[in-house]
Amino acid sequence: MSKTNDVIVLGSAIVDVLGAVDDEFLLTHNIAKGVMTLIDEHRAEQLYAAFAEPREVAGGSAANTAVGLASLGASAHFTGRVKRDPLGASFETSLRETGVAYHTAPAEHGPATARCLIAVTPDGERSMNTYLGAAREFSIADLRESDVAGSSVLYVEGYLWDAPSAKQASLHAIAAAKANRTKVAFTLSDPFLMGRYRNEFLELLPELDILFANEEEAKSLFAVEEFDDVLQALKSSSAVVALTRSEKGCVIAHGGEVHVVDAAPVKRVVDTTGAGDQFAAGFLYGLTRDYGLSHCGHLGALAAAEVISHYGARPEIPLKTLAAGKGLL
Amino acid sequence: MSKTNDVIVLGSAIVDVLGAVDDEFLLTHNIAKGVMTLIDEHRAEQLYAAFAEPREVAGGSAANTAVGLASLGASAHFTGRVKRDPLGASFETSLRETGVAYHTAPAEHGPATARCLIAVTPDGERSMNTYLGAAREFSIADLRESDVAGSSVLYVEGYLWDAPSAKQASLHAIAAAKANRTKVAFTLSDPFLMGRYRNEFLELLPELDILFANEEEAKSLFAVEEFDDVLQALKSSSAVVALTRSEKGCVIAHGGEVHVVDAAPVKRVVDTTGAGDQFAAGFLYGLTRDYGLSHCGHLGALAAAEVISHYGARPEIPLKTLAAGKGLL
Repeated sequence: MSKTNDVIVLGSAIVDVLGAVDDEFLLTHNIAKGVMTLIDEHRAEQLYAAFAEPREVAGGSAANTAVGLASLGASAHFTGRVKRDPLGASFETSLRETGVAYHTAPAEHGPATARCLIAVTPDGERSMNTYLGAAREFSIADLRESDVAGSSVLYVEGYLWDAPSAKQASLHAIAAAKANRTKVAFTLSDPFLMGRYRNEFLELLPELDILFANEEEAKSLFAVEEFDDVLQALKSSSAVVALTRSEKGCVIAHGGEVHVVDAAPVKRVVDTTGAGDQFAAGFLYGLTRDYGLSHCGHLGALAAAEVISHYGARPEIPLKTLAAGKGLL
Repeated sequence: MSKTNDVIVLGSAIVDVLGAVDDEFLLTHNIAKGVMTLIDEHRAEQLYAAFAEPREVAGGSAANTAVGLASLGASAHFTGRVKRDPLGASFETSLRETGVAYHTAPAEHGPATARCLIAVTPDGERSMNTYLGAAREFSIADLRESDVAGSSVLYVEGYLWDAPSAKQASLHAIAAAKANRTKVAFTLSDPFLMGRYRNEFLELLPELDILFANEEEAKSLFAVEEFDDVLQALKSSSAVVALTRSEKGCVIAHGGEVHVVDAAPVKRVVDTTGAGDQFAAGFLYGLTRDYGLSHCGHLGALAAAEVISHYGARPEIPLKTLAAGKGLL
C-alpha cells in the first residue's frame, strides 16, 4: 500500500487539565505535591470540579510525540480512545488544532475520557493526578488497519501494555505494520514497566525497527547497571536503538554502528516533562526523511531542548522553524 | 624477545619546580597568571633563584603516566633526557622513588635539564613557566632498543614531535616496537600540535595499536566539529582508540566495537592537571592485564578522578589500592 502518512501513533488519549492552585488546595484535597498519583473516576470528577478556570490541552506521552512530529512538518496520525463526553471533545479539538490527524470514534459507553489533573502551585511545582478511564479500554475495534498500512512508521508506547485490550491492539497493529512494510517504532515509556513486562519487551525487540529508551529504562530492560552493558547487549539487535541520557545527550546504536550525539544546549532547564516524547518526535521525523542516524539524533536533541526550556509538554516554538534555523532540515 | 617490563614510556623529562609566591612576585617577575609560558634558560635560572624553598618533583605528561602505571602495580620504564646537573639528579631521584625504572644517561653537554617553574599564588592559581632544555635534545642515542623489545607496550607522547631529534627517536622506537611485537601506544598530547603535525599524526595512525586523545585533540586531528564525526572517522582504524571527554566520560572505539564509559564520580574537582595522563595510565594498565576495553576505560576514569580531586599531577592515593577497592583489579 502506498504511504500517504508519515507516522501513525498509538497511545493513551489523556487530557491534561491544568489548574492554578495554592498550597492550601493541595492540603484540602489531600494531593501529594510534585508527584504523579493514579486516581479513580470519582476523585477525578471531584478535583476537576474544584479547579477554578481549568485549562485543558490534549496530552499523553505518545500524543505529545505526534504533536512534535506535526510541529516539524510531518504528517502524523493519532489513535487512542476517548469517551463521548466534554473532555473527549476537548481532547479531539486540542489535538487537531496542532495539525495531528485524529479520528478514533469516541466510545459511547464505559469509563470517562482519561485526564491528568495537574495542580500548579505558585512555586511552579506540578502535582499530577491521573485517571486513565477510556484510554485503558483502547482495543482492536478502535484500530483501522488501513491507517497503519498507509503510514511509513507505526509508533507505539509501552504504557499501553498496562491495559490488556490496549496491549492486544498494539500487537495487532505491529503485525499489520509488518505485513505492510510499515516500520515499527516502540518506546519503553517508563522504567517501572520493566518490572512488569521485561520479558515481553525483550521478546518484542526482534520485531522492532526502532526502539526508544532512556538510560534507566534500557538498564532495567537488560537488568544491567552500566550504560555500556546496554550498548553491548544491543550489538546483536537489528533495530535502530535511540538511547537518551539527559544532559549526556544520546547514543544511537544500529548493530555495529554507534553514534554518540551531544545534548543540544539549553539556557535554563525549566521543566523536563516531555523531553523523551519530543526527542522521539525529532528522531522519527529525521528517519521519515531518510536522514543519517547522527542527523536524526541531533533533531531529537533539538526538540527535547526546546520542550525542557519552558513549562508544558508541547513545543512552544514551531520545531520546523527551529530546526531550519539550526541547519538541520 | 620475552617481555620483562609492562610499559616503556618515551617523553619529555621535566622537573616541576613549585614555589609558593604572592601576587606581587608575579608582577615583579612579569609572569602571566594562570597560563603556561615557554621561557629560555636565562629566565629559567632567574626565576629558579627567586623561588624561596622550591619543591621539586619529576613531571612531564608521559612521565606522569609512567608514575600512574607504577602506582597501579605495573612495571614501567621511562626514557627521556636530562643533563648532568642538580635538576637532572633531582628528576632521576624523584622519578625512581615512585617505582618507575629510569636509566637514560644524563647528557654531559648541551642545554640544562628541563623544568616547569610553577608559581603557586595564595588563591591556588598555578602560573607555569617551562624551559624545555635537555628534554628537546632527546635522540636515538638515548634509546635502548632492548628496553623497547622487552616491554609489552611502548607509550610515546605527541609533544616529542616538537623537537626534530626527539621525533626521530620516537619513530625509531616505534619501528623497533613493531619488529618485536611490542604494542605501540601514542597520545596526541595537545590540540595545538594538530596545527603543526596533523598530517604526520594521520600517517602514523595505521602504525598504532592504541591511540589516546581528548575530544578537542581528536576533533582537531580529523578537522571535524562534532564528536560523533570523530567516532565515524575512526571506524576504519585498526587501533584501539580511547577518547576522553572530561565530565562526559570516555568513548573507546576499536573498529566496529564502541564502548561508552561514564566518568568516575569526584566529590570536588580541584585541579584538572594530569587527568589525561592518569587516564592513560589506568587504561594501559588494564590492557597489559588483558582486561576488556570497558574495564580498561573504567580504570582510566578512576585514575583520572583521583588526580583531579587534589593539586598535583601524581596520584596521592596508591591507584592499586583505589582500584582494588572498586573491584576493578
